[in-house]
Amino acid sequence: MKVAVSGKGGVGKTLLASLLSRIFAESGYSVLAIDADPDANLAATLGFPHPEKIIPISEMKSLIEERTGTRAGQAAAYFKLNPKVDDLPEKYSQEYKGIRLMVMGQIKKGGGGCYCPENTLLQALVSHLLLARNEVVILDMEAGIEHLGRATAKAVDKLIVVVEPSRRAVETAYRITKLAQDIGLQNIAVVGNKLRSQSEREFLISSLPGFEFLGFIPYDLNNLPPVDASQPIITEVRNIHQALLSTIGHQT
Amino acid sequence: MKVAVSGKGGVGKTLLASLLSRIFAESGYSVLAIDADPDANLAATLGFPHPEKIIPISEMKSLIEERTGTRAGQAAAYFKLNPKVDDLPEKYSQEYKGIRLMVMGQIKKGGGGCYCPENTLLQALVSHLLLARNEVVILDMEAGIEHLGRATAKAVDKLIVVVEPSRRAVETAYRITKLAQDIGLQNIAVVGNKLRSQSEREFLISSLPGFEFLGFIPYDLNNLPPVDASQPIITEVRNIHQALLSTIGHQT
Repeated sequence: MKVAVSGKGGVGKTLLASLLSRIFAESGYSVLAIDADPDANLAATLGFPHPEKIIPISEMKSLIEERTGTRAGQAAAYFKLNPKVDDLPEKYSQEYKGIRLMVMGQIKKGGGGCYCPENTLLQALVSHLLLARNEVVILDMEAGIEHLGRATAKAVDKLIVVVEPSRRAVETAYRITKLAQDIGLQNIAVVGNKLRSQSEREFLISSLPGFEFLGFIPYDLNNLPPVDASQPIITEVRNIHQALLSTIGHQT
Repeated sequence: MKVAVSGKGGVGKTLLASLLSRIFAESGYSVLAIDADPDANLAATLGFPHPEKIIPISEMKSLIEERTGTRAGQAAAYFKLNPKVDDLPEKYSQEYKGIRLMVMGQIKKGGGGCYCPENTLLQALVSHLLLARNEVVILDMEAGIEHLGRATAKAVDKLIVVVEPSRRAVETAYRITKLAQDIGLQNIAVVGNKLRSQSEREFLISSLPGFEFLGFIPYDLNNLPPVDASQPIITEVRNIHQALLSTIGHQT
């Protein structure tokens, strides 16, 4: 199963991606978490002790050349070999508490350019990775909509859009859904986050008619990092995990 | 004066950019506001009646070709003519309540590509635009750090980083500052937003030692859109406007 977590900046994508990764790992899945946002820090959020040692996917260029003789621009050829998760070299991932983590790209120098090449490599990787039944890939996408222009997540089984109870977050959800359909992504669901009241829940449901809601995560009054998330939050993400499994029928 | 508003997604960049635009306009400045985030909606936030009619900067390609005979990739040549704000064609901007608005790019189709060409055009425009003493350009940047890789805002007089009282927002502020220095942007200041208490204010001050704080905007309990911002918020943005004027000494 391949899942991408998307949404407006600040809605809680990394919170959901990290808790889902933990819950999948605890329930016996082999989890590959991919941090696709250069301004996120999924590694720290998951408690990885030495996140700075992870070599980013962008550096796989050299690996691809070495193994296939093709240059990075022709990366798709390498990935058409349909690697399995176990084939991914240790060097480009770290494992901690049952979660294997890859990061898309390091922070570049100011003026160092965009993240287009990294997104191209990541798309090829996600598209061609063959998963076993008990394996799941969870992508923490960059904020906003540009990754959809780049079609980075087009091969996922489920695109989760995180929304908080604000008009702006709802607008972004509509934009993401429309753009996702352009790239053939139909399987989209919504998760509400930062909910303080029943009326905020109703605001989201009435603002997004026809959308599939996987769950509603309560507001974290203590503003704790996800690694210390409170019990009500973890309980709700467990429900979201169950909803996700039933909605995509345990397929890989 | 050219100002860019940056920060992690969801911290309130569009709130600050829109209120600053209004306050500059009310105090007699000629304001050019530029929405540089394809997932933002500065036009709607400023109350523009027909935002969908604004032709984005990305479409200036045709204008550049028409006037100079060069293609979009060579746009810099056009902008080296150092246009004044009044030279910018009406077609690419709308005016409402003393604010002229330009938008960087429309939402593309999913899979339609990245926003690199738009950022290149915008950078050239901001760099070469000659401003009179009473003119101000306010850029609402995209969430996160990629625009710094692209150096979109490298010609501004002041880069404002908006932070909310959270570790993640503070981390992004450090990343932005480091990247901004790579592109020669030294004049950086911070605005705190969504403050609920004195202790949150102290958290920000102690987390960002040595940073220049222009002000601290209180949390909006009613979650109102910026156009209906409450009086305490507007009062604080007026103070930020004053701090901005004194910090960059009214220069253009």
